[in-house]
Amino acid sequence: MPSHDAGLAPMFRRFVDALEAGDVRLVERFFVPGDQTLLVRRGGMVVGFASIVEAVRADPLAPCGRLLQSHLREIGPDGTLVTATHRTATGGQGVMTLLWERTDEGWRIASAHVGEPDPAIDPAVWRQAGAPLAAATGSGPLEGMSVAAAELFPLAGHSLASLPVGADAPARTAEALAGLQQAGASVVGLARIDGLGLGDTGDDPAGMPRNARAAGRLPGGAMSGPTAAVALGQADLGLGLDTWGSLLLPASYQGLFGIRTTHGVVPLEGVAGVAPSFDSVGWVARDLAVLAEVADVLLPQAGLLGLDEALLGRDLLGLADPDVVRAIEAVLDRWDSSVLPMRMVGQDRDVLDGWAQTCRQIRDAEVAGRHRAGDADLAGLGADVRTAIRSGLAMDDARLRGARRAQAAARAATAELVGNGVLLLPTTATVAPVRDRAGATARRGRDRTQQLLSLATLGGLPTVTLPLATRRRLPCGLSLVGPLGSDHALLGLAGQLAAAGVIVHP
Amino acid sequence: MPSHDAGLAPMFRRFVDALEAGDVRLVERFFVPGDQTLLVRRGGMVVGFASIVEAVRADPLAPCGRLLQSHLREIGPDGTLVTATHRTATGGQGVMTLLWERTDEGWRIASAHVGEPDPAIDPAVWRQAGAPLAAATGSGPLEGMSVAAAELFPLAGHSLASLPVGADAPARTAEALAGLQQAGASVVGLARIDGLGLGDTGDDPAGMPRNARAAGRLPGGAMSGPTAAVALGQADLGLGLDTWGSLLLPASYQGLFGIRTTHGVVPLEGVAGVAPSFDSVGWVARDLAVLAEVADVLLPQAGLLGLDEALLGRDLLGLADPDVVRAIEAVLDRWDSSVLPMRMVGQDRDVLDGWAQTCRQIRDAEVAGRHRAGDADLAGLGADVRTAIRSGLAMDDARLRGARRAQAAARAATAELVGNGVLLLPTTATVAPVRDRAGATARRGRDRTQQLLSLATLGGLPTVTLPLATRRRLPCGLSLVGPLGSDHALLGLAGQLAAAGVIVHP
Repeated sequence: MPSHDAGLAPMFRRFVDALEAGDVRLVERFFVPGDQTLLVRRGGMVVGFASIVEAVRADPLAPCGRLLQSHLREIGPDGTLVTATHRTATGGQGVMTLLWERTDEGWRIASAHVGEPDPAIDPAVWRQAGAPLAAATGSGPLEGMSVAAAELFPLAGHSLASLPVGADAPARTAEALAGLQQAGASVVGLARIDGLGLGDTGDDPAGMPRNARAAGRLPGGAMSGPTAAVALGQADLGLGLDTWGSLLLPASYQGLFGIRTTHGVVPLEGVAGVAPSFDSVGWVARDLAVLAEVADVLLPQAGLLGLDEALLGRDLLGLADPDVVRAIEAVLDRWDSSVLPMRMVGQDRDVLDGWAQTCRQIRDAEVAGRHRAGDADLAGLGADVRTAIRSGLAMDDARLRGARRAQAAARAATAELVGNGVLLLPTTATVAPVRDRAGATARRGRDRTQQLLSLATLGGLPTVTLPLATRRRLPCGLSLVGPLGSDHALLGLAGQLAAAGVIVHP
Repeated sequence: MPSHDAGLAPMFRRFVDALEAGDVRLVERFFVPGDQTLLVRRGGMVVGFASIVEAVRADPLAPCGRLLQSHLREIGPDGTLVTATHRTATGGQGVMTLLWERTDEGWRIASAHVGEPDPAIDPAVWRQAGAPLAAATGSGPLEGMSVAAAELFPLAGHSLASLPVGADAPARTAEALAGLQQAGASVVGLARIDGLGLGDTGDDPAGMPRNARAAGRLPGGAMSGPTAAVALGQADLGLGLDTWGSLLLPASYQGLFGIRTTHGVVPLEGVAGVAPSFDSVGWVARDLAVLAEVADVLLPQAGLLGLDEALLGRDLLGLADPDVVRAIEAVLDRWDSSVLPMRMVGQDRDVLDGWAQTCRQIRDAEVAGRHRAGDADLAGLGADVRTAIRSGLAMDDARLRGARRAQAAARAATAELVGNGVLLLPTTATVAPVRDRAGATARRGRDRTQQLLSLATLGGLPTVTLPLATRRRLPCGLSLVGPLGSDHALLGLAGQLAAAGVIVHP
């Protein structure tokens, strides 16, 4: 590779060698240490040296194999654009465009665009996918819609590789999924869930999907696969279970519209549930209209409730980080009382903390019921998941009875709180935490998010989450929680708020 | 977007609008018309304005939706690097890095690196894929190997979406595929074939895989999916059928090692065959060692033949284009007679032409046997496929009897020609033709390639194809055709040739 500066060629060669060797200090050694340095890859754009260091540590660049072609273009005396293709260790072809700048320390990369070869499917998102995996079985309002279903939903004729050898393909498709197919939707695939349905980061040991709306941040879980499939544009609809925010949370982190339906309204027969007291079918989409179209297919039409008022819980709002609060306050500033009048309500924080504990106890106990065999099958699960199962296995009857009493009391209290109104609260207390190796940031704000999510979980209440964005353009969510059976009404209200300009799609 | 030149921002905006609108003259309007202009995308690097025009016409860039971020870096007075992320119409996120140059006509793109969002799976390659779709069922020498199987092979527990609604998942996996699983390989997915197994371009109306080794060129067919999966690094092994070169041809076009086994040696029970007289199981890989490992599992061990001599057919070699001939002559120049002595043989070209006609007649007749119902189900197939089926349907008994006599004669003649030697000939007469809309280039050289492929097809002979590269670094192939049952011997010879430096992996 000729160069107008003899120093560039060996530097590029060293960069390629370092990439091949998986050098963890790759960025530090080769990139310009400035706040305008850029890294572009599949997951989006990362700006600034420090952010790039962080991003590449959490998710290293694919090792570069043999160079196939390289092309060099001088731009002025101190800039050279190097474009190269290379074969990766897995046989695919990678491409890169690097802007090298002559600095006092020699040639450094000021901007890198790295294209890694595609896998057959992204194993962090999908268990199986097809073109489609299962076609529509009828025609109807969902014609042309593509669905990513959580792997918990059986799909007739498709055995999961994760099942024991010889397991038969299920004979029947889960009722909710079959309903979508009958209405014209096709099934793109069965998408991965995190930690047996208990994970809240999406960082399953077996793989973590990219967050399409927030590069380098967690996607959230447990419905990490179906939500990521939608955020990445690989499906129009994500179908999953919301146990204790396991669908609402990743929807918030990834900037999606989502609904958790009233507990028990959509049948779960045949579905591999997580914690039956809480499990509710839910779905996510990039467009609000899609949520409503699906609701028309899956939810009973009877009993469209009118909602009387919007309830704003200042204490609930106060659980969120300031950037999330500001995003919600921007909505409140635009609130249109002609759509729905608003009233402030209070909610004791200690009560919320108790509700979160009750959620945990009941969920752990119900999950552990599936793991009586002992600890042998916990290997390979994340620490949080193992803790949950062990805690459930260790729970004695007295404590469980106490939790059940608290559950019943909370159910009554939440019903009273919401009344015939709609409660507004942050879906999650924080934006998606930064992906890091230690997982430390994932824990920040988790308690507050779990408190926020406990309300609908214990109440069995329907919730619609609407995507907002912070000033830094990171996704967060506003939840609308309504009384039992108000699913259609919540979606109708969301549509009115969008039409009135109160909700602006970020 | 501020700029040191007020002209760049509106030009970038116009480029984004043109991308969004799918402007067919996008390259002409915005790119520098020079031979150093670059386009980098998933498929690799395209160099030169004219080639870029051609590549983008055949395979347009994905429409660009709303811009999310854009970042601008001035490099000298006449260069600006623009990096941007955007949301596509399908909801995914695209990224681009554009080097704009100030020219006499204003700002133009000198280098573009465009990253389009990934689909769930590439529907041109796969029908279904998983992580894995079906796990290994045993442990053995193929442990860790991933397989892309042609969709013709049934896989237990996995119904194909292309089958009629309600079709059951097959109860049994095809024997060859099951054998791979028992030896430790996992099945990544079921890969698409072109034109019911008849297409030779890979340009099925339903989608054409990229050629990973030759950007902008046809992948070849009919086993376009399993071969592309391997060339793209999405699987280690591609399992398919070779009918009349339908596996050898795409292996040659895409730079892969491949084997067509002796006709009838690997059982085809349950496999949806194409033309039973010719159908032979075959497989492709990026590495020669993988071919042999699989042969040890799928082929009977008995009767490892020794091969007496290498036979070089000058007339056969002369069927190929000059660049392919040169690539093969480079191998001949390195030939090591201590591995195998070489002898020249002749072969009348008129005989070859007759063999190709016989292949076509028999294939068409056998394929048409599956389409007695009439023309109704031919809709959606390519013109060549329809022609083949119609021709088969129209064939009368007298002509078919004539073709059968010619087949028997050719079988004897090819056996005599090969004797106990190995015949060296070009796998295909040309490199992969350029992908164009009219399909005109695909027909150039087709007759000669079909003549070359007829020999092993009519003889039922095993063939190993080895990847070579022309001076322009385009893939082509050298075929080793041996006597019936010499499959292991051919692979052994290929290994010796590689060890002796006669065959150099391009």
